[in-house]
Amino acid sequence: MTIEEFGRKLRAHEVSALETTDTCLARIEAGNARLNAFILVMADEARHQAREADREIAAGRDRGPLHGVPMSIKDLVDMRGTATTAASRLRTRHVAEHDAPIVVHLRRAGAVVVGKTNLHEFALGTTSEDSAFGPARNPHDETRSPGGSSGGSAASIVAGMALASVGTDTGGSIRIPAAACGTVGLKPTYGEVSADGVVPLARSLDHVGPLTSSVADAYLVYHALLGNEVTRPLVAAPLGGLRLAVPRPYFCDVLDDEVRTAFEAALDRLRAAGAHVREVEIRHARDIASVYLHIGLAEAAAYHATTIDEQPDSYTAPVRLRLEMGRHILAEDYVRAQIGREVLRREVDAALANYDALVLPTLPIPAPLLGANSVMIGATKEPVRSLMLRLTQLFNLTGHPAISLPCGHTSNGLPCALQLAGARMQTDALLGVALACETALR
Amino acid sequence: MTIEEFGRKLRAHEVSALETTDTCLARIEAGNARLNAFILVMADEARHQAREADREIAAGRDRGPLHGVPMSIKDLVDMRGTATTAASRLRTRHVAEHDAPIVVHLRRAGAVVVGKTNLHEFALGTTSEDSAFGPARNPHDETRSPGGSSGGSAASIVAGMALASVGTDTGGSIRIPAAACGTVGLKPTYGEVSADGVVPLARSLDHVGPLTSSVADAYLVYHALLGNEVTRPLVAAPLGGLRLAVPRPYFCDVLDDEVRTAFEAALDRLRAAGAHVREVEIRHARDIASVYLHIGLAEAAAYHATTIDEQPDSYTAPVRLRLEMGRHILAEDYVRAQIGREVLRREVDAALANYDALVLPTLPIPAPLLGANSVMIGATKEPVRSLMLRLTQLFNLTGHPAISLPCGHTSNGLPCALQLAGARMQTDALLGVALACETALR
Repeated sequence: MTIEEFGRKLRAHEVSALETTDTCLARIEAGNARLNAFILVMADEARHQAREADREIAAGRDRGPLHGVPMSIKDLVDMRGTATTAASRLRTRHVAEHDAPIVVHLRRAGAVVVGKTNLHEFALGTTSEDSAFGPARNPHDETRSPGGSSGGSAASIVAGMALASVGTDTGGSIRIPAAACGTVGLKPTYGEVSADGVVPLARSLDHVGPLTSSVADAYLVYHALLGNEVTRPLVAAPLGGLRLAVPRPYFCDVLDDEVRTAFEAALDRLRAAGAHVREVEIRHARDIASVYLHIGLAEAAAYHATTIDEQPDSYTAPVRLRLEMGRHILAEDYVRAQIGREVLRREVDAALANYDALVLPTLPIPAPLLGANSVMIGATKEPVRSLMLRLTQLFNLTGHPAISLPCGHTSNGLPCALQLAGARMQTDALLGVALACETALR
Repeated sequence: MTIEEFGRKLRAHEVSALETTDTCLARIEAGNARLNAFILVMADEARHQAREADREIAAGRDRGPLHGVPMSIKDLVDMRGTATTAASRLRTRHVAEHDAPIVVHLRRAGAVVVGKTNLHEFALGTTSEDSAFGPARNPHDETRSPGGSSGGSAASIVAGMALASVGTDTGGSIRIPAAACGTVGLKPTYGEVSADGVVPLARSLDHVGPLTSSVADAYLVYHALLGNEVTRPLVAAPLGGLRLAVPRPYFCDVLDDEVRTAFEAALDRLRAAGAHVREVEIRHARDIASVYLHIGLAEAAAYHATTIDEQPDSYTAPVRLRLEMGRHILAEDYVRAQIGREVLRREVDAALANYDALVLPTLPIPAPLLGANSVMIGATKEPVRSLMLRLTQLFNLTGHPAISLPCGHTSNGLPCALQLAGARMQTDALLGVALACETALR
């Protein structure tokens, strides 16, 4: 059920917030032992908030589209009175004294929080399997990762445990699990949504945004996170004449065959619906991974340095290893990476100059098996982590808004996804393009 | 002669641009062998430009306040067809293909460029003595430094070799020589004046700005650098009720006795003229030097890394040593310094919240002797370089505009100076405050 459907039914007295919340909680009760999507289930508070929402709406005090909506929140975000664990043993007693500003906004919008979702430890990973609370699992295939780091958030939506979720995205951590689980995931423009009260991974790359069942829902949650009242529904960009650009070199070089087929089929459908699809090139795309690594790991290492020194064994080994790598990066290389980042930002701006959006796959592979460090692409063995970041991390470096939409499945039923990226500070315009594409691909 | 006086006399036909330019060139001819203020004298072009200015004004084509004004430019700025040496042996053949945007603006404003001034090699020093072209000298005492890195610029004004100059300021490199030579020096808000076509020292700290004989002249050159037409003269802030704040802790802790006396006498005069002078504290002031060092040296090292590897002996030893220190800084420490910088920025914003400007000395000591690595403050030996940066580098970190004004002399005739810092993006307001203070101190 989307937030939109729920809202219509709620206001037509066909469902109540409490019933819907109870359904979500029942699914958590039934499925969380297997999926491990939630670190904390907040059943009592959720029921209380749902009852309150039903009461307010009955009394004519309608708070808008998120009122009474059962949502989950990644356990990287402060909620007063609960531990913000970041899926780390180090933080199980870090009880937040205040709600993060985005939580304040969600509460004011009337959202019902059913619980806090599992993630890759400290958000430093793409599979959500290194977690002090055990790996999160993909609802489509429990032997597989739901993607990460916001893996529990995406899984919670697909499994009907929440109607929407809030995740964070430093290299793709909203879009990757959205793609792996078959939901929508939006990384807004850098800096738009407050990251205060959110455990940082790499401050200059960290974004907060929604995971939802539809583009229209992503629009609603995105504006709620901003603290905006939504007065008009999202309007789709006209498909006829929509100008899309595929950055094929680099971004389409290393793709699983079935992912490639699904992506090309999606482009065909968009063309058939009237979109113009051209090709562009991001000239320094080959530098993305190195620029990203130098900035991301250095900033993460700066945040974790003291704890790594004092309690190295409290980290999972893969996360500690990456943080330790970050500690050896030289400042001159970090500064050079920031200059490279500026080059990439200008190249993405230039690529977008004559187009409504860039269109590319979100994930080069379907959801990987838990425990897999590498995966075969044709005859080549590729490392899972760098592959999963390959198509998303650019827009963390450049700050452009980017959204992942489902676009078909592999032969064994795993979701494939399409990514759209738009001009900076034009997140609403990107959402309009995404809505048009979602319709064409349905 | 100030630019204002020159402009009045020029338009009253009491002087011509050519006569004034010839006077400057004659002084360069007579004095540059001793002062070493200029690396390049452009006598023929200057005379040509001056004649052209006289012709245009006679024909009624007045380009505004800088028309016909003989100026010097720090040899860190690209001027088409001349080498931008940065006072380094490495760059004596780096002939610029284009004028830097600020040079384009100055030419359009009708300025006459008499030559390019000496500086500390690559702007990485406060005394202008490490230069491939030999040390620049202070016109008040040739055994002393004119300050740096824009030492030649300040010396050229005091020695009457130019009416104004353009310098750059990464830790104080405009304000320090202005203070040491007794001129006015303005570092605008970060990012206002283009630094394109200027050899970088540390990109996130580099500022371009004017050195002049008066605050009103600084206003004229500052707007010319921005490419603005000046239509109204600078208006002084009313002295009665002017709210000034002295950040005494740290900024007044280590001062030469005579500098302190001159500073306190200046405050007394400002109070007598009606200003309210209160005290404020920058809480993390003790971190300034370390935050500055980690950011400044790391960024400088990133720029120089390849050349340091390939031609280490082409640098002067003190500059190479500092760059090599920069190469060992870790990215996690650079990132932490950037966080410290943000703390300092907020503290300066907060300190300014209820005041028109902060007021503090510019230089803790009078112009130091050439060759001196340390200087006595009372009974304590202090290193010259860190002492000279101590009061200015904060505003490079925070981006706030800051200006240095003369305020008296030591018993042996060396200039002392007062520094004013104002709110970000309010450089004109700071200039208005500075004009009021200049009048009160005259």
